Amino acid sequence: MPTIRIALAQTNSCVGDLDGNAATVLDWSRRAHEAGANVVAFGEMVLTGYPVEDLVFRESFVDGSRDRVERLATELADQGLGDLVVVVGYLDADGPARLGADSPRDAGPRDALAVLYGGKVATRYFKHHLPNYGVFDESRYFVPGDTLQVLRLGGVDVAFTVCEDIWQPGGPFAIAGEAGVGLIININASPYERDKDNRRLPLVRRRAAEAGATVAYVNIVGGQDELVFEGDSMIVAPSGELIARAAQFEEELLVADLDLPDGAATMDVTGEMRVRLDTLVEQPWAPNGPAPVCRVVENLDDLAEVWAALRTGLRDYVAKNGFGSVIFGLSGGIDSALTAALAVDAIGADRVHLVSMPSQYSSQHSLDDAAELAHRVGAHYYVEPIQGVVDTIMSQLSLSGLAVENLQARARGVLLMALSNQNGHLVLAPGNKSEYAVGYSTLYGDSVGGYAPIKDVPKTLVYELAAWRNEQARCLGHPEPIPHNTIAKPPSAELRPDQKDSDSLPDYPQLDAIIAAYVDGDRSRRDLIAAGHDPEVVDRVLRLIDAAEYKRRQSPTGTKITSKSFGRDRRLPMTNRFRDHG
Amino acid sequence: MPTIRIALAQTNSCVGDLDGNAATVLDWSRRAHEAGANVVAFGEMVLTGYPVEDLVFRESFVDGSRDRVERLATELADQGLGDLVVVVGYLDADGPARLGADSPRDAGPRDALAVLYGGKVATRYFKHHLPNYGVFDESRYFVPGDTLQVLRLGGVDVAFTVCEDIWQPGGPFAIAGEAGVGLIININASPYERDKDNRRLPLVRRRAAEAGATVAYVNIVGGQDELVFEGDSMIVAPSGELIARAAQFEEELLVADLDLPDGAATMDVTGEMRVRLDTLVEQPWAPNGPAPVCRVVENLDDLAEVWAALRTGLRDYVAKNGFGSVIFGLSGGIDSALTAALAVDAIGADRVHLVSMPSQYSSQHSLDDAAELAHRVGAHYYVEPIQGVVDTIMSQLSLSGLAVENLQARARGVLLMALSNQNGHLVLAPGNKSEYAVGYSTLYGDSVGGYAPIKDVPKTLVYELAAWRNEQARCLGHPEPIPHNTIAKPPSAELRPDQKDSDSLPDYPQLDAIIAAYVDGDRSRRDLIAAGHDPEVVDRVLRLIDAAEYKRRQSPTGTKITSKSFGRDRRLPMTNRFRDHG
Repeated sequence: MPTIRIALAQTNSCVGDLDGNAATVLDWSRRAHEAGANVVAFGEMVLTGYPVEDLVFRESFVDGSRDRVERLATELADQGLGDLVVVVGYLDADGPARLGADSPRDAGPRDALAVLYGGKVATRYFKHHLPNYGVFDESRYFVPGDTLQVLRLGGVDVAFTVCEDIWQPGGPFAIAGEAGVGLIININASPYERDKDNRRLPLVRRRAAEAGATVAYVNIVGGQDELVFEGDSMIVAPSGELIARAAQFEEELLVADLDLPDGAATMDVTGEMRVRLDTLVEQPWAPNGPAPVCRVVENLDDLAEVWAALRTGLRDYVAKNGFGSVIFGLSGGIDSALTAALAVDAIGADRVHLVSMPSQYSSQHSLDDAAELAHRVGAHYYVEPIQGVVDTIMSQLSLSGLAVENLQARARGVLLMALSNQNGHLVLAPGNKSEYAVGYSTLYGDSVGGYAPIKDVPKTLVYELAAWRNEQARCLGHPEPIPHNTIAKPPSAELRPDQKDSDSLPDYPQLDAIIAAYVDGDRSRRDLIAAGHDPEVVDRVLRLIDAAEYKRRQSPTGTKITSKSFGRDRRLPMTNRFRDHG
Repeated sequence: MPTIRIALAQTNSCVGDLDGNAATVLDWSRRAHEAGANVVAFGEMVLTGYPVEDLVFRESFVDGSRDRVERLATELADQGLGDLVVVVGYLDADGPARLGADSPRDAGPRDALAVLYGGKVATRYFKHHLPNYGVFDESRYFVPGDTLQVLRLGGVDVAFTVCEDIWQPGGPFAIAGEAGVGLIININASPYERDKDNRRLPLVRRRAAEAGATVAYVNIVGGQDELVFEGDSMIVAPSGELIARAAQFEEELLVADLDLPDGAATMDVTGEMRVRLDTLVEQPWAPNGPAPVCRVVENLDDLAEVWAALRTGLRDYVAKNGFGSVIFGLSGGIDSALTAALAVDAIGADRVHLVSMPSQYSSQHSLDDAAELAHRVGAHYYVEPIQGVVDTIMSQLSLSGLAVENLQARARGVLLMALSNQNGHLVLAPGNKSEYAVGYSTLYGDSVGGYAPIKDVPKTLVYELAAWRNEQARCLGHPEPIPHNTIAKPPSAELRPDQKDSDSLPDYPQLDAIIAAYVDGDRSRRDLIAAGHDPEVVDRVLRLIDAAEYKRRQSPTGTKITSKSFGRDRRLPMTNRFRDHG
C-alpha cells in the first residue's frame, strides 16, 4: 500500500495580486517540502484570489493568471521544488473572457486547477459544478468543465475537484468512485456562514463514502471585501474517520501521511463527465522519515467563531486596501463600543482613532462611557462637538423633526470624513443589522464609512458578543474592554430629548426573530404569524423593513443589509411595490 | 388562409405591483378588444414587473403572481373579454423559490408566459434560454423550461417564446420552424442600450427566416431602477418584411391583420426541446371589419433616443417611488444645467427645485449662469451659501488641501439632504460618467442623491446633448434652456482658486475614448496603445480609474459607474490589486 505525505496549505490571498499570491504559494511550498511532503494542495483561485468578479472580463487579467501559473511551475523547479507535486487554483480560459448571448457553450473562462511538477504544468482540471446562488455568481463568469482528471501520483490514482463539486451527490465524486481512485483532492474558497462548520464535516464524510476514497479538503482563509473564508481544511477517510483538521480563520500547513490503495483506475464510467487518466509519478514515494503527528483541531465555539470572523474581515479589509488606521464615532452606546473592542483586537489600539461628537442631546453618562471605553482599550481619543455646525445650519434653514435628527448624524459624518481625508484613516460605520434592516439610521450620517464591521450582526448578538468579549478578558485576567454601563443601559440614538430605541421599535429579541425570518428566510407574514408572532408586531416590523428599503431609494448607495452572516447585499428592486403586510 | 388580428400591447409595469399591473393588462385588453383584435400579447413579466430580483425567493410573492394570473383570467371573462386570447408574462414556480446547492434541476421558479382564454389559463410556457450576463442574472433566479408550446388559434399554429429565446440560433425558433408553425409570439423585457434598436430588427428578421414563420415581438417600456425598457415592438414576416413597428419609450397598442398558413404543425422535431401541440380555437376567426392601418414607426435619431431614455428613466424612478419633486444643486456648470433641463422635461418645472450653493470660490459667472438657467426652465430656485458651515468646521479642525475641497462638497450635500428630509424632495446627483470613472467627485458630497440621471453619460455626450436640446428648442421656437456661456466656458469644480478640470484630467474626448475602451470594453493597456493612444495619457487615466475604484473602498456604497448605457454597476472586488498600467 503506497503512502503519500500530503500537505494542505490553508493560506490567505488578495484578489488581483498575482505576484504576491504566487510568492505565498512558493513560500508555503517550501514549508511543505521541508515537512517532507510529496504533494501540497492550495485553495481554489489561490493565485488570483477569490472572488475575482468582473476582473474575469479583462483579457489581460486572464492572460496574467495563465502566464503566472506557468512561471510559478518554473520558479518552483528553480528553487529545488520540482519534485514536489503542487496543486493550485487559478483562472484559465479557452475562449472569450466575457460571456454573452453569442458565447460558445464549451469554451470560455474556467475556474481551474493546475498540477505543477518538474517545472511544468502537468495537468489542468476545470471546475464542473458552478454555484450561482447566495454569494456565488459563477454561471456569470465561468464555463463548466466536463472531464474528470485522474493522475497517478506515487502509485496512487488521485482525482482533482474544485469546491462546489463536493456539494453535489452523483457528481464528480461519484464518478471518481466509479473510476476507482484512492484519493480525491478538493480545493475550496468556502466563505464563512454561521454554523457552516457543523455542516462541512458531514458533507465531506458523505462524499468520501460515496466515492469510497480518502478526501483531502483544503480551503482558503482571510477576509475579502464582504466575505470571510474560514479554513477548516481537513482529511477524511472513506470510513468517515477524521484524519486531520486545521484551525478556522488561521493560516496553517496541515500535514498527514496517507496509506492509499494501489492505482487501478478505469476510464469506463457512466454519468455526465468523461474521465482522463494520466501518470505523473508511477512508483510509490520512498518514506520520508517518521510520520507527522496529525492535528485534529476542534472547531471554535459559536461566539468565538463569530468574533474571529468579524475580526478577520475587518483586519483584512484594512490591510488589503492599504489603510494604516481607522476612525469612527464613539457614542457611549453598545454598537460603537463593540466596534472599538473589535477594531483594537483586529489591528491594534495604536491604529484605532475614536471620536466623541457630543450634541445638546448627548447625556453625560454617554460621554463618560465613551471616554471610559477609549481609556480601557487604549485607543486614540478625541472630542469634537457638533453643536457649532448644527447651529449654523439651523440658523440658515427652517428645519424640524426628523430633518433635525438627521442633521446631527450628518454633521458627525462630515467631521469624520474631514478627519479621514486629512489623516488617511478608513472610516468605519458601527451600525448593526437590526437598525439597518428597519432603517433606524441616517443616510450620509452614521452610515458613513468604508466598512461596516458589524452590519451583519443583529442587536441581540451585539449584546451577546459584548458579554462574551468581557468574559474572555476576565478569564485572561485583563480589564474588560466594554464598560458595564454601556451594556446595561437602554439603547438610545440621543438625537432628541429622552429618545429611546424602544420608542420606535419592538424589543430586540422579537425584532431580531422577525428580521431573521423575513429578511434571511424570506418567510411570509402568514408564516410569521403561524410561528407565534403577534400579528400587530409583525405588521409593524414588516412595514419598517419595507420602508427601510424605500428609504434607501433616496440613496441607491445606502448601506444595505445582507441575508447571510457575511454575504452579498439583498438584491431587491428599488421601485418595488410588493407588500406582504397588513 | 386564416387571418388573425393581433395586438401588441407595449405597456409600463411597476415591479411588485401585482394589482396595478393586472389593472393595466385589463385596460389594454379592453382597448385591443375595441380594436377588433383576436389576440393581444403583453411583455415579459408584465404582471410582476421586471426584473424582480430577490423577490423571487419570497414564496408569498411567487404565490401572489400565480394567484393573480388565475384571477386575471376570470376578470377578463367577467368584463366580456373571455373570447380575446390574452398572452401575458408572469412569475410561476413548480418547485422551491430559492435555488441553492440542493435544488432540483427541473423544478423551481419560472420566467413564465400564460395564455388566458375563456376565463381560464389555457396554457403556460416557461422561458428556455436564461441570460446570465450584462444586466441579467436569470440563472440565479429561474429554472429553464424544456417544452415548446404550440397552440392552434383561429386555425393557425402559434408558438410562444420569451425574450432571450429569440437571441439563440438553433433554439426554440428553429424548433418552432421544424414543427411548422405559422406565427411565433415573443414577449420581451429588453432594456435599452445605445444602438440596440439597430441590432433588434436584423435579429428578428434572422429568427423569422430561421423559423419560416411570422414573428410578433412585443417589448415593455418604462424605467425600472437602473434599467430603461425601450419598446420598439414589431411584427416581421418570414420574408423579412417589417409589417408593423411601435414607437420607442412610449406606451402603444400596435394592431395588425396577419394572413397566416393553415395549422399543420407536427411534434416530430429534433433538438433539445420537446413540442406540445394543443388546440384552443380550431376554426379561423371571422373578419372583424376593415384591416387596421399598420404603423411602422421610424426609430429615433441617436441623440433623441438617448434623451428619451434618460427622461424615461428619471420620470419613472420619481413616479414609481412615489416622490412628488426633486432637488439638486445648480453650480452654473454643464452637468447640473443638463440635469435641470432633463428634469424639467421629465416631470415638469413645478416639481423641480434648484439650489445655488455658492462658496468663496464660486465665480460670479457661475452664479449668473445658474440663475439664468433656473429662470429659463422655470423651476424653483434658491440660493443657500455654504460659507457658514465651512467656516465653522474650518475653525474647529485643522484641514488643508483635498480635505478642504471635499468639505465644501459635503456641506452642500448636508444642505440638500436637510431640504430633502424637510420637504420630501428626491435628491438628484448630477455627476457624469467621466467624472465618476476617474473619481473626480466627492463621496457624501456632490455624489449625494437617490438617483444620478446622467451617471452613464460621458462628458463629451453631455455637451452633445446640451447642444441638441438647445437646438430642439430653437426648432420649436422655444427659448434655449441652457445658457450659451455654460456650454462655452471651460469646466471647473470651483473648489479652490482658478481650478479647472484640465488641471487634473486630459481633454475629455481623449478621456472618454479611454474610459469606453478600458471600462466598457475591458480592453488592456496594450490594446489602448495599439489603438493609437499616447502611452503616458493611457497610464495616467488607468491610474485615475484604478484609484477611483480604490477611493470607493472608503465607501462600498459610493456611486459606481456602469459598463453599459444603462446597466448594472461593474462588480469589481474592492480589495483588488491587479494593475494593468505602467
